[in-house]
Amino acid sequence: MGGAELTVVRLGHRQQRDKRITSHLGLTARALGADHFLLCGDEDEHVMETISGVTNRFGGTFSATHDKKPMGWLKAFKREGGVVIHLTMYGEQLKQATAAIPRDTKLAVVVGGAKVPGEMYALADFNIGVGNQPHSEVAALALFLHELLGEIPGQDRFEGGRLEIQPSASGKVVVEKE
Amino acid sequence: MGGAELTVVRLGHRQQRDKRITSHLGLTARALGADHFLLCGDEDEHVMETISGVTNRFGGTFSATHDKKPMGWLKAFKREGGVVIHLTMYGEQLKQATAAIPRDTKLAVVVGGAKVPGEMYALADFNIGVGNQPHSEVAALALFLHELLGEIPGQDRFEGGRLEIQPSASGKVVVEKE
Repeated sequence: MGGAELTVVRLGHRQQRDKRITSHLGLTARALGADHFLLCGDEDEHVMETISGVTNRFGGTFSATHDKKPMGWLKAFKREGGVVIHLTMYGEQLKQATAAIPRDTKLAVVVGGAKVPGEMYALADFNIGVGNQPHSEVAALALFLHELLGEIPGQDRFEGGRLEIQPSASGKVVVEKE
Repeated sequence: MGGAELTVVRLGHRQQRDKRITSHLGLTARALGADHFLLCGDEDEHVMETISGVTNRFGGTFSATHDKKPMGWLKAFKREGGVVIHLTMYGEQLKQATAAIPRDTKLAVVVGGAKVPGEMYALADFNIGVGNQPHSEVAALALFLHELLGEIPGQDRFEGGRLEIQPSASGKVVVEKE
């Protein structure tokens, strides 16, 4: 990525109905290599605390903010040279479409909620389908980020936490740092 | 996979708290190439109907059943020659561990719930971590199945449905079949 910033934008969050899915989206964004999570729709302290709590414990510089007006945010982002990718089961096939995404500019990856505005398809520079079957925005985000970045980030991306999990074939190995 | 059967086992489902995450797990299992979903913990008609509804509309032969006693089911599965893979953030690294999984036998991929019994780590033939960061069992399942199978299944895996989505760069193209 050459250090270009990567933001995951969650549209249309509904606090009660979506709280766990949206938390999973935020944590997946962090673990799979995004830099920032933009929560749109309802404000939600619980989601924000879940994400910041994991970053505090497990390290790295991932951040999360809320914005009421995602379409305005995305338009400003594009005016500043950002590229917008919309994940939708109706989109182009993952591999071919992802190969065409520029790597030298900041990217916003938009993940839909209950009602995606029709203008989203035109505003996006890329509409990408992670398989053209109904499944999960969490799965789609994970597979897209992996395809884009080519790897699952390792411990070197998550400096400064209190806890580090070491891979183990047979149990739980958690290193508590001072 | 040489046609060997692949079952995704969801441990410890709690009907109220987990309904959406578990539905996403079932649909991700289907879309990413598993054959069967075994729901453990609470019974849940809503989850079952979500999965069968998608299969009815979008095709394929994916199935889902419930079992109260997953450890007994897994032990019987192993006695019959099946290989058990447990996805956990404490596990071995995805790429190396997945490369060692035999491809000529039936596989069960276990995805944890609220409380994973300690014996799960010993019962599993492989404990695999999809990144050693906390994120989402939906993301972990998607990335594992993609690593195991090497591709996202195409339309040829989903014969017989009423609806087919065709990839599009700019909008929604849904073909309604007779």
